[in-house]
Amino acid sequence: MIGELEIDSSTERVGEGVHALSLSPRWGLDDGRLNGGYQLAVALRALAAEVPMPDPVVASATFLRPAMPGPARVRTEVVRAGRRLATGTARLVQYGADGAERDVLRLEATFADLAASPADPHDLTSPPDLPPFDACRVFGGDDAPATAAPVSRRVRFAAPELPGWARGAPSGDPRAEFWFAFADGSDATLLDLAFVVDGAAPVVLDLGRGSSTVQLTVHLRERPAPGPLRCRTVTQHLAHGLHEEDVEVWDSAGALVAQSRQLALLL
Amino acid sequence: MIGELEIDSSTERVGEGVHALSLSPRWGLDDGRLNGGYQLAVALRALAAEVPMPDPVVASATFLRPAMPGPARVRTEVVRAGRRLATGTARLVQYGADGAERDVLRLEATFADLAASPADPHDLTSPPDLPPFDACRVFGGDDAPATAAPVSRRVRFAAPELPGWARGAPSGDPRAEFWFAFADGSDATLLDLAFVVDGAAPVVLDLGRGSSTVQLTVHLRERPAPGPLRCRTVTQHLAHGLHEEDVEVWDSAGALVAQSRQLALLL
Repeated sequence: MIGELEIDSSTERVGEGVHALSLSPRWGLDDGRLNGGYQLAVALRALAAEVPMPDPVVASATFLRPAMPGPARVRTEVVRAGRRLATGTARLVQYGADGAERDVLRLEATFADLAASPADPHDLTSPPDLPPFDACRVFGGDDAPATAAPVSRRVRFAAPELPGWARGAPSGDPRAEFWFAFADGSDATLLDLAFVVDGAAPVVLDLGRGSSTVQLTVHLRERPAPGPLRCRTVTQHLAHGLHEEDVEVWDSAGALVAQSRQLALLL
Repeated sequence: MIGELEIDSSTERVGEGVHALSLSPRWGLDDGRLNGGYQLAVALRALAAEVPMPDPVVASATFLRPAMPGPARVRTEVVRAGRRLATGTARLVQYGADGAERDVLRLEATFADLAASPADPHDLTSPPDLPPFDACRVFGGDDAPATAAPVSRRVRFAAPELPGWARGAPSGDPRAEFWFAFADGSDATLLDLAFVVDGAAPVVLDLGRGSSTVQLTVHLRERPAPGPLRCRTVTQHLAHGLHEEDVEVWDSAGALVAQSRQLALLL
């Protein structure tokens, strides 16, 4: 099945390297702005349609202005296409009150053909040790309160217990381990992982702080096997009103499929 | 004192946002190509001269073609200047046999004013537990063999023992902990850290493999205190002929000053 994310991040090619869409309110946060991972998925999908290699392996995005539901374009440029790798850039733009285009997000991404070489993994990581998805406390999706942000109805998380911040008692420990699944039951594609790594609430909520992403780089390492994904999130360092957040994602077969790091403003 | 890196990465402004320099062979690798961290420092320093905020806090670079000693330009663009952050892009270009400009490196970086807010750090990291610099085995700098790459004479590393690969016996464990100092005795600036995180040999050499950087993102978190820096490098994941490498850097006061992650091609 084609998932909600793929539907809502698909674009129409309206010119040389130019793609148009209406950003969907289904991926909105509490205040109406759109989730950063959704913006990244939109820009990356448009760029993927232009670059002559199938699999994004690294994507790096700077978030410049809030993205809002409604008309947007993605302006892409293929920068270099080599034998093993191809690189392009994309700008997600929306329109000011004066009708002028303004950059919302800038993306640079490099693509490869993962099927052209064996995985032959050498891996020092290990996925979180979690009970099965259905044995966990599930939150989000249809279980999200009616007042919850729209994006929280698109995804389902599962963990032995709710995060401290969600119970009104921030734990003081900015780490989390949980299952991730799309609420519509679709399986995540390689490209979808660019959303997944920014799809959960920031773990600095467990320090009693909010957060707004400045820059995010994600490595997309393997097309995920079907089924829910296991995620580990940690913020190791806050200083000068900025913090990093690392996310690792493993598929149902235990393969590391994505690693991300973001720098974000503390609110 | 002004260090060799600052001297060799300084540019002349020759037009609106355009900077010129001759890339120095002093930062060359074995095969004459230039070290990636040096390229990054060049592009970031030129961009820093254009952006109306003093401190780069995140820089993200894609390495498109080999950089060679000789004429180069950095073409910069300030993308957004806000109250707390300012973002710009830079392209390091050199010239093909036909005289045409070709992108060597593309950079996007965001700047802040670190002195405008207290550090107030919250830190889960801890620096490597190393004997004092001078109690370690020192390599590089004046101790580098006459046949060593020029860049290895610019830097000094210190660790209890040489890496396995340097003794002709790759350890099989892609991790390293070591001291870093510039061979000329200069102290690293915040911007210099963008070189430091790509200034050491890749740890996949201890798996018997070579490496070529595709994309590198570095968070620059604190102006380093004077003195040598402690570094930890690890490659956690290789697959499909690509690997990541994470580097963390602490200053002499024990503060985490930089974190980087790169995706690189295995050779």
